[in-house]
Amino acid sequence: MDVFETVRTVLAVRAFQAKPIPVKVIHRIVESAWLTGSSRNGQPWHFIVVENRATLKQLGSLAPTGPYIAQAPLAVVVAMEPSPYAVSDVSRAIQSMILTAWSEGVGSNWVGYQNLEQTKSLLGIPADVEVMAILPFGYPAKKLGKGRKNRKPFAQVVHRERFGQPFE
Amino acid sequence: MDVFETVRTVLAVRAFQAKPIPVKVIHRIVESAWLTGSSRNGQPWHFIVVENRATLKQLGSLAPTGPYIAQAPLAVVVAMEPSPYAVSDVSRAIQSMILTAWSEGVGSNWVGYQNLEQTKSLLGIPADVEVMAILPFGYPAKKLGKGRKNRKPFAQVVHRERFGQPFE
Repeated sequence: MDVFETVRTVLAVRAFQAKPIPVKVIHRIVESAWLTGSSRNGQPWHFIVVENRATLKQLGSLAPTGPYIAQAPLAVVVAMEPSPYAVSDVSRAIQSMILTAWSEGVGSNWVGYQNLEQTKSLLGIPADVEVMAILPFGYPAKKLGKGRKNRKPFAQVVHRERFGQPFE
Repeated sequence: MDVFETVRTVLAVRAFQAKPIPVKVIHRIVESAWLTGSSRNGQPWHFIVVENRATLKQLGSLAPTGPYIAQAPLAVVVAMEPSPYAVSDVSRAIQSMILTAWSEGVGSNWVGYQNLEQTKSLLGIPADVEVMAILPFGYPAKKLGKGRKNRKPFAQVVHRERFGQPFE
């Protein structure tokens, strides 16, 4: 799918079909994270691909805002080596994954890091690496709308030449 | 252009043709930022579209790492209302813009914020809003490679089931 069409239609998905995601698509999702640009090419990131059902269930129980991870066929745990730009860099990689997945019909959602220590110990993540997000992925359980989004008025956030002059 | 192909080929562009960017494409670039998802739908962002040559020149002189902004036909100054998730949210919106632009043949690069106070005063940005990045946009001055990227080995950053088990 075209990039703009993907950005326009992508929605957070929290309920997934059991249908597995083809290996080729999984590969493409994590490759899009790996290939993302970062400040000074620092690449301060790690992506842990989880398909094991027991691990997915444990991740779901460790994430108060993401119990639906337990039902997803796939999750990517995103971790970072802290640096002044790491949050930006890793967020860009996450956006690349969300868009690449959606363009293949696969939905996801950004689940914030919680119960950090247990998650790290579950996945063998070293002490100096931080968990930033868990992204469950899967085919949406129900048909979603056409991407209608609840956003602030365009003219409130997009300015022309100077702050406060609406772009359109 | 397809999302994965865009992520795979996008490169930082620092030299631009004088050729203006069509209004429709500019609109699409900022719309992709506006439509990006954010934590709790907070949308803590502002995007200032700059095409005025004098302003572009001033931005170029205020950004030690981005003097080439002065030659770009367009820059989007990205600002945020600080919040715990603002850096992540805004970084995602920037990634949406970079990918949307590239899929239309338009290159860009993330220029870090510097000389913050002068930039804010130049653009009339309120005291409680922070400048995060300046993104110059334009058609690349020279033909770029096929997106060959200098990245850490895939197996070093992509893990299977547990940290340290290479994905492939």
